[in-house]
Amino acid sequence: MRIETPYLLFLGDAADPLAAKTAAGIAQWRPENCLGQMRLPGCNADLGLPDMGIAEARAAGVRTLVVGAANRGGNLNEAWVPLLIQALEAGLDLASGLHQKLADIPALAGLAASLGRQVHDVRHPTGTFPIGTGEKRPGLRVLAVGTDCSIGKMYTALALEREMQARGMRATFRATGQTGILIAGSGVSVDAVVSDFVAGAVEQLCPANAPNHWDVVEGQASVLHPSYGGVTLALVHGSQPDALVMCHEPTRPHMRGLPHRPLPHLADCIAAHEAAARLTNPRAKVVGFSLNTSALSEDNAQRVLLELEERFGLPAVDPLRTGVGPLVDQLEEIEAHALA
Amino acid sequence: MRIETPYLLFLGDAADPLAAKTAAGIAQWRPENCLGQMRLPGCNADLGLPDMGIAEARAAGVRTLVVGAANRGGNLNEAWVPLLIQALEAGLDLASGLHQKLADIPALAGLAASLGRQVHDVRHPTGTFPIGTGEKRPGLRVLAVGTDCSIGKMYTALALEREMQARGMRATFRATGQTGILIAGSGVSVDAVVSDFVAGAVEQLCPANAPNHWDVVEGQASVLHPSYGGVTLALVHGSQPDALVMCHEPTRPHMRGLPHRPLPHLADCIAAHEAAARLTNPRAKVVGFSLNTSALSEDNAQRVLLELEERFGLPAVDPLRTGVGPLVDQLEEIEAHALA
Repeated sequence: MRIETPYLLFLGDAADPLAAKTAAGIAQWRPENCLGQMRLPGCNADLGLPDMGIAEARAAGVRTLVVGAANRGGNLNEAWVPLLIQALEAGLDLASGLHQKLADIPALAGLAASLGRQVHDVRHPTGTFPIGTGEKRPGLRVLAVGTDCSIGKMYTALALEREMQARGMRATFRATGQTGILIAGSGVSVDAVVSDFVAGAVEQLCPANAPNHWDVVEGQASVLHPSYGGVTLALVHGSQPDALVMCHEPTRPHMRGLPHRPLPHLADCIAAHEAAARLTNPRAKVVGFSLNTSALSEDNAQRVLLELEERFGLPAVDPLRTGVGPLVDQLEEIEAHALA
Repeated sequence: MRIETPYLLFLGDAADPLAAKTAAGIAQWRPENCLGQMRLPGCNADLGLPDMGIAEARAAGVRTLVVGAANRGGNLNEAWVPLLIQALEAGLDLASGLHQKLADIPALAGLAASLGRQVHDVRHPTGTFPIGTGEKRPGLRVLAVGTDCSIGKMYTALALEREMQARGMRATFRATGQTGILIAGSGVSVDAVVSDFVAGAVEQLCPANAPNHWDVVEGQASVLHPSYGGVTLALVHGSQPDALVMCHEPTRPHMRGLPHRPLPHLADCIAAHEAAARLTNPRAKVVGFSLNTSALSEDNAQRVLLELEERFGLPAVDPLRTGVGPLVDQLEEIEAHALA
């Protein structure tokens, strides 16, 4: 099920830019899909897009209103429902990455059904998934992995896709979380899939493809994460990656939300992910590091990246500071070997 | 939610003993909970329990009718519904391990609700689960792991519990699959839990306990299984086992249902499970092997067990042929060290 584009990004009364980070991610990575933003009084986020009402958005060609801001708790503000009704009546679909499902709000679900409109609750997978088989599929795949959650895997995958496409490589971002799905227009929130079917859902997400096509798969969590390691392992097995990129934040003191749990050592984290990946792709290897060095000065960031490169003999980048070119060089080498 | 005992085991028109294997497992491991069996014309299974009708079962003190036989596909035979209605009306609860939910049959769900009776679809978890934390809990835990699915993990765990209790140790079987849940009267089908919550569900299943109490946790699949490895990893992380028992079937030619996939080498399988388990319990170790040697002659079985013992320096048993005493010896040593 694809989400129809272009989008109107609904920011609600986002208290600060962070509350609108889903919308900001879409605007950053798919500006061509974002015709406007809609802000309510008190909104403190601004994506620099044209402010539009629903009628104006419809006239401009918008197909879907995206709820791109959240209250604490991931709930929908009840005051927004009349606006969403208005959007459906104007002929727009709705999409949301919130925990609370739009489809569970009877006024929206009933109206959408009667109008033939779609309501996409992207955090909640629909449809059925096969059981994974682990059989090797044609095509190439790169998966972002990491030392923790929320450490730059989606950003890294999107930066890889952009650079690969700029070089003329065939690359498709494959989304495994709600923001990624809204960016890509399709995908599956793997952490919300029943555990038996996660590997199979990922196999379906990045199916057999041309020998020179790359699936650039968004990662989740870490196989060394005590809460979500099982999600990650199924994602690693199902995506059967040829290449892994290790994402890391060098100043994070402990795993997010787990103050008793330090981040794993990078060497252990590489070994664990490579071992896991080789079950379904014996050629899997970590090809480099993608760091979020935003907490470091330019000098310190360069020093950290250089140290990693020397220690592991692999390229280390910050997608924002340095770009991901050296990682894509590695992928080009893998592609050349695979096609040789 | 506990399933009330004792049980009447409903075998339906099971085509052969294998079709009634759920009921057979309950009768084998919890004979004290099984007052009778109920068989329909054409049933080719017989557990050796008294044959009873519903009124007779009720008079004998039965609290729950257990649907312990399946058609192909895990569906309920429609012809059984009137009998299940009769059971509810007689005051019995219902429990089923089938894929198809009894609670989805309106005639049953409505009647049960109006009568205040419980309908347990044990393959389908209910309630909410926490996110796992990986924090160490008091108490001791042993987890059955293995080289494949359906390779004796439940049987091994139940045999361990029985032997441990016979020695006066404090041991509680913790069920993670549908047959195990019907045997134990409670538990959680981890493969049907949303992937984000599997580790947390397992943490809840074997919570903090007395320092000398053992949770004997039923395993599922294998971290080296390409379809279900994620389920297993979450189970390993959540159960934070002090001891692992490696289950294996020495004649199986390939993973069940995956003819392209040989079973992993035992040394690799030990290393993978120990590495996984040490994330949440640094003392985790494989303490021995539990083999299903039913396909081997007595001589060959003894030879295979002896070879394993010599190769790995760990005890190797077949629960059915040799008992699990040597494995429990290992657990007693771990307990002595832990309490020292």
